[in-house]
Amino acid sequence: MTFHQKHLLGIEGLHPEEIRTLLDLSETYVDLNRAASKHSDVLAGLTQINMFFEASTRTQASFEIAGMRLGADVMNMAMQASSIKKGETLIDTALTLNAMHPDLLVVRHPHSGAVNLLAEKVNAAVLNAGDGRHEHPTQALLDALTIRYAKGRLHRLSVAICGDIAHSRVARSNILLLGKMENRVRLIGPPTLMPSKIEEFGVEVFDDMEEGLRDADVVMMLRLQRERMDGGFIPSEREYYHRYGLDAEKLAFAKPDAIVMHPGPMNRGVEIDGTIADDINRSVIQDQVEMGVAVRMAAMDLLARNLRAARERERADA
Amino acid sequence: MTFHQKHLLGIEGLHPEEIRTLLDLSETYVDLNRAASKHSDVLAGLTQINMFFEASTRTQASFEIAGMRLGADVMNMAMQASSIKKGETLIDTALTLNAMHPDLLVVRHPHSGAVNLLAEKVNAAVLNAGDGRHEHPTQALLDALTIRYAKGRLHRLSVAICGDIAHSRVARSNILLLGKMENRVRLIGPPTLMPSKIEEFGVEVFDDMEEGLRDADVVMMLRLQRERMDGGFIPSEREYYHRYGLDAEKLAFAKPDAIVMHPGPMNRGVEIDGTIADDINRSVIQDQVEMGVAVRMAAMDLLARNLRAARERERADA
Amino acid sequence: MTFHQKHLLGIEGLHPEEIRTLLDLSETYVDLNRAASKHSDVLAGLTQINMFFEASTRTQASFEIAGMRLGADVMNMAMQASSIKKGETLIDTALTLNAMHPDLLVVRHPHSGAVNLLAEKVNAAVLNAGDGRHEHPTQALLDALTIRYAKGRLHRLSVAICGDIAHSRVARSNILLLGKMENRVRLIGPPTLMPSKIEEFGVEVFDDMEEGLRDADVVMMLRLQRERMDGGFIPSEREYYHRYGLDAEKLAFAKPDAIVMHPGPMNRGVEIDGTIADDINRSVIQDQVEMGVAVRMAAMDLLARNLRAARERERADA
Repeated sequence: MTFHQKHLLGIEGLHPEEIRTLLDLSETYVDLNRAASKHSDVLAGLTQINMFFEASTRTQASFEIAGMRLGADVMNMAMQASSIKKGETLIDTALTLNAMHPDLLVVRHPHSGAVNLLAEKVNAAVLNAGDGRHEHPTQALLDALTIRYAKGRLHRLSVAICGDIAHSRVARSNILLLGKMENRVRLIGPPTLMPSKIEEFGVEVFDDMEEGLRDADVVMMLRLQRERMDGGFIPSEREYYHRYGLDAEKLAFAKPDAIVMHPGPMNRGVEIDGTIADDINRSVIQDQVEMGVAVRMAAMDLLARNLRAARERERADA
Repeated sequence: MTFHQKHLLGIEGLHPEEIRTLLDLSETYVDLNRAASKHSDVLAGLTQINMFFEASTRTQASFEIAGMRLGADVMNMAMQASSIKKGETLIDTALTLNAMHPDLLVVRHPHSGAVNLLAEKVNAAVLNAGDGRHEHPTQALLDALTIRYAKGRLHRLSVAICGDIAHSRVARSNILLLGKMENRVRLIGPPTLMPSKIEEFGVEVFDDMEEGLRDADVVMMLRLQRERMDGGFIPSEREYYHRYGLDAEKLAFAKPDAIVMHPGPMNRGVEIDGTIADDINRSVIQDQVEMGVAVRMAAMDLLARNLRAARERERADA
Repeated sequence: MTFHQKHLLGIEGLHPEEIRTLLDLSETYVDLNRAASKHSDVLAGLTQINMFFEASTRTQASFEIAGMRLGADVMNMAMQASSIKKGETLIDTALTLNAMHPDLLVVRHPHSGAVNLLAEKVNAAVLNAGDGRHEHPTQALLDALTIRYAKGRLHRLSVAICGDIAHSRVARSNILLLGKMENRVRLIGPPTLMPSKIEEFGVEVFDDMEEGLRDADVVMMLRLQRERMDGGFIPSEREYYHRYGLDAEKLAFAKPDAIVMHPGPMNRGVEIDGTIADDINRSVIQDQVEMGVAVRMAAMDLLARNLRAARERERADA
């Protein structure tokens, strides 16, 4: 079993073998979640705290269900309404929680790098549930697991990621993961929503769906993140849909058996046509959500194993 | 054991025998809740999600306690603050949650029929915790259990339901249940707060407390639901209390041993005199709350049995 | 084992022997919280409800973790958003919850005395998590445990409590506890933030840090509670820090091995210099948080024992 991480902060630090280990273990949790009884004791006696400094119903729910099903004591902290309002700093908040001896800290934060900073200060294993425009590793892992189930493999695929790349940590983590596993990544979007120098990541860039989707095995649509667009160019929804929204006509440029993905929540008629989203022969959007719980169970399981091993070593040394 | 439902969406679809089954089972949970240790494993390994699109402290608390005591993994989702704000539809939200494999979904929604719609889209057993002006089945069931304990039976009683009938799903579910169990229902309230054609439900309608309460075994007061009164007639609290608020004088029109009910939260001095509400010889308002937890435990227990049986049949067929 | 309380409403009603019992038991929970598996079944089958009428991320988290680790079914109620908005009174809310048969009620309320009032109305054991300017007993107990660990004893110490005494229930509970355990308490703060007639509690009062900190074994800083300062004098942060903020220079007036405490959340550079707060040779601020969870576990454990014993007596009598 190859998985040497103390935290899961991003895809960047993961070895391809570690990604495979995590996805393999996730499959056993997909099975558990489909079983009549969905409970394990893998995290029994451990405390999981979800600290969401940015609201996220679905990601928080996914982590919460994952932890509960593994027997952890799970606590949600609504950090927007928290001590931070009383003048406390992020680090003080982290140190305070750390003193309560959590074992797993799931953190979402609006600032890139905030989760890494926090991980340096605490004893718990930290899982990044999305930080600014930086990383969202469990999203990339659940996307990878979804692709692997649908396509039978996770290498030598052509994956098109379409839309608002610039504001998307989902895109960033996916580019990293798909690259590590030797896939071809094609980015499609308006130049105003494309990060500069993105080609350095070994991707191809297109501003036209017809060209970009050619021969794609996987079409991954992104959410228009209006809440992150401060000031700059904001396309009209109508115009955006016309040029970049996925409909049957545009999907026809991809391979005939290409699958369609979206991290949710979807804006039907803006990023994607409702009929495509609901087409069970093409869309794996619901599968992504299902894989999400399993991937988070696997990630917390692996991190907890490493945490326990590290603590035993410390005890033996003492 | 007669209980053939997949969901608990309303009283309308229930057979009297099913109501009796549910109330009988509830009594064992009343006993459990009064015991020194209040824990069972009936729902162990199952995931319960409470989706409240409308805030409700007491109903949500009642369902949450019910699920925890039966050993379920219980998750609350604050749907007001949720993905719906990011442009997602109700159905997409439901499908997303469904993909996380919940077993029990408890749903409250401001629109009549929304919970039924949602139930068609998911694999979980759905419990309606109140939808618009439509139904609130667990409230009617807890009221029925309260009456059965207090009166020793649930048939051939005269039950007066008083107040804002027009905006009340509580009234609607109670009218249905009490009718099925062969009781006489009398509705009392100002004509402006009385639904049209309500007589078709086999009830008698009064706009005067003296007449309406005559010989009542049960006096069920309703909350003035100002938050649902959009535009139309809103009575002054003072005037309303004078004509329809339950005080000792008006209660004297009912039978000498009539019990007093209120679904809460109460507006003392508007719908009901505080002294009456607190009179332990007449008021069963606290009992209603107690019965609420037990009825919800019984409902989830029965639905989980049917869910498990259906899954076993599916497996056997496959 | 000496602990005869039904509720934990304040330090005022506790016997010194009861305080010792609680602190001794807390030490076993400090150990449990540091262990690989942090789970006990001491509260299994019991229902704990956290009712916070005033937001408090850290105190609520501490109680929630404490309850979960002891195996209780723990429910949080966001009372700000609750039925109280629909016109319900505090007592009705309490009676409603009581009817759901909770065993432990953890209550924070902005009004002094509200928690005592509530405790009279319910069957559960009530823990005061802070009421107005009155008491915050678990804070004083965790401070006591922190001092006992750091100093090896909890008597004949000189403890300086500094800052906004007038608005502080933390100060009030600490003054009571430290007095009962035969310590000398010195209060330091601007006269405008000092309660009148406070000397009756057997404390010495200073408005100057140099004088007040002389020979102190323990320096306890308080948070400036601007949210409680209605109207009256509000010092500028700059001026306040200059006169009363703890920095190296002022700390030098205390004993060379004096420890530094703060109940959190801290305003660095207002009440305390960040370097002092982070100095692991002097500051025990993180220890206070750690002790908080342990003290709350011990308090709930002891109250649950008394609750169970009382119920058995009731049953035997019946």
